[in-house]
Amino acid sequence: MRILIIPDSFKHAISSIEAAEAIVAGIRRAAPEWQLKSFPVADGGEGTVVAMLAALGEGKTITVQVTGPENTPIDADYGISGDTAIIEMAAAAGLQLVTEPDPETTTTYGVGEHIRHALESGATRLIIGAGGSATNDLGCGAVAALGVKFFDNDDAEFLPTGQTLHRIQRIDTSELHPKLAGASLQVMTDVDNPLIGPHGAATIFGPQKGADAAAVKRLDEGARHAAEIITRDLGVDIANLSGSGAAGGFAGGMHAFLGASLEPGMDIMLDAIGFAELLEHTDLILTAEGQIDGQSLAGKVPVAIARKAAGTPVIVLSGSIGSDLEAIYEQGITAVFAIGSQPQSLADALKATAANLENTAFNIARTLSV
Amino acid sequence: MRILIIPDSFKHAISSIEAAEAIVAGIRRAAPEWQLKSFPVADGGEGTVVAMLAALGEGKTITVQVTGPENTPIDADYGISGDTAIIEMAAAAGLQLVTEPDPETTTTYGVGEHIRHALESGATRLIIGAGGSATNDLGCGAVAALGVKFFDNDDAEFLPTGQTLHRIQRIDTSELHPKLAGASLQVMTDVDNPLIGPHGAATIFGPQKGADAAAVKRLDEGARHAAEIITRDLGVDIANLSGSGAAGGFAGGMHAFLGASLEPGMDIMLDAIGFAELLEHTDLILTAEGQIDGQSLAGKVPVAIARKAAGTPVIVLSGSIGSDLEAIYEQGITAVFAIGSQPQSLADALKATAANLENTAFNIARTLSV
Repeated sequence: MRILIIPDSFKHAISSIEAAEAIVAGIRRAAPEWQLKSFPVADGGEGTVVAMLAALGEGKTITVQVTGPENTPIDADYGISGDTAIIEMAAAAGLQLVTEPDPETTTTYGVGEHIRHALESGATRLIIGAGGSATNDLGCGAVAALGVKFFDNDDAEFLPTGQTLHRIQRIDTSELHPKLAGASLQVMTDVDNPLIGPHGAATIFGPQKGADAAAVKRLDEGARHAAEIITRDLGVDIANLSGSGAAGGFAGGMHAFLGASLEPGMDIMLDAIGFAELLEHTDLILTAEGQIDGQSLAGKVPVAIARKAAGTPVIVLSGSIGSDLEAIYEQGITAVFAIGSQPQSLADALKATAANLENTAFNIARTLSV
Repeated sequence: MRILIIPDSFKHAISSIEAAEAIVAGIRRAAPEWQLKSFPVADGGEGTVVAMLAALGEGKTITVQVTGPENTPIDADYGISGDTAIIEMAAAAGLQLVTEPDPETTTTYGVGEHIRHALESGATRLIIGAGGSATNDLGCGAVAALGVKFFDNDDAEFLPTGQTLHRIQRIDTSELHPKLAGASLQVMTDVDNPLIGPHGAATIFGPQKGADAAAVKRLDEGARHAAEIITRDLGVDIANLSGSGAAGGFAGGMHAFLGASLEPGMDIMLDAIGFAELLEHTDLILTAEGQIDGQSLAGKVPVAIARKAAGTPVIVLSGSIGSDLEAIYEQGITAVFAIGSQPQSLADALKATAANLENTAFNIARTLSV
């Protein structure tokens, strides 16, 4: 049997690399002779650089001093493989970097410095993971680091953050970094939220970044205003563009200012591992996800895999299975197994994640041997 | 695919009949064309009459007024199928019948009345489930109802209970019910405890019947004394006989006084359903058990099945999987799946038992279809 193992990470428990190792160990114990290929994945958030470098087969990480989300210098990594750079926006602007979460004052400037460093190092293909951001600046900080200039009512140049988006009156992109013209940019998104409105960046993701109701309202109004100026000065309307709300509008900014394409992170990931070709030599796909239910299919790794599996069976191992399972099977998923061994608290279950994954994989392999 | 479905009940949740229905429903939903045969089982405890009548294919229950464990009249059922009677000792002497649990004063007299009724109705094969008893009278009450006489120091006849076992000085079996001579008796036991000592009836099962430490000591000493008299007067030593401690020594008494054989309940159950012949037309066995681990294999339905499965794969669905799983696989079990869908409390898990069983069976069937 030839099995392809492509798990997501388990939030608050184990990385996708550890998940892949656990599943491989379980199958090996049951059926040592089976052919296994495993690829940990990430869809733009934490672990994207490591997973993409593993998928591309070679490469390295580079540490650069950049501006952190709170405007202080930090060391942050990105990855490079041949002419391809892999950047996690959260490495320079992530929620894990801030001391006091505040999407009104944090900046993506350091992400732009990463992009600039990659361009000046010769990268011509940039893959940028959007996810886990502390910011809501529409990527204005990042593009400012690449030469875009923002002006206020008094025609004074300034660096917009979430709370000053409403002051943008004019945008000048004439001094964009020249290397951008020869580079392709892809942004990996794991959500399809638009920039503004009730499903927009501020409303949906602002609270988890520290915004209260009043701040969410200010951020949403600021983004609405900025989007109007962007439409007028750049001719690109990102206000309601699907995915533009990812990472505090960073994805929308990358599209508007730099012409980046916004793509589901898993699609880029599956392309990188050569998923379509792998399928020709695969009897079964085992994937895993911390939590899965029928209501929140968007952004789930097993769903992205099943949609492209072209009839190859897909079995999902999950820490928690919610309701409306029918919708899961309709996506092309063959079976879903919860990995927990007994009734227990979430805290205990999280601690047992690797052991439970291995055991469940072992029992599935033995069942497949029947 | 031809599947044999033989689940145990899930304590505090659902009966074995409901468990079988849930598993059948799950498989039907995944693979309507598969051939399913299902037998709910019981190993001597609650549900034994229903399960055995289902296994034997025909029969009925009969309600008889008998003496309850607290010496008051109660209505209690037993089953009859042809010349075979199925008696649950707990129906007339079970813990569920008492208002104040006290193994020193409760009696198995009503179980003897059930046996007498069955004999006088023409039954020549009696299968008696031992389990769930409120008593620790070594079955003295039951055999008294069938003509055995117990005498004390003053040679006065009396009816021994747990607290008066030590008063037995002489036993007279000369007036045993005449129909017993032409009948075979089998006692279904789900434990292999001896009558007395640190693994005996009083020590191990006394506390759950309401005995404190002092009462346990008295009961154990009383049983030790009674066993000596039994050895002297009947020539049968049940003190350390495996299984004689089942149901407060009721099993031991049935063996000593009535010549009953003590057999693992699941062996009798599997014989009744014709397990050996069914195996010839079975590709896979699905069984289920509330809780399973490598330390307590005795009395577990899946283990009894696996030991007789003769190479047919056995998949277990369980509410809770403990440690030392290797010991489970060594019994011949192919795979074990926990049925819980997510981290949750035992109370919530118990409520979801039927739904979780169905879902897990569904996913196993879909996995087997790969």
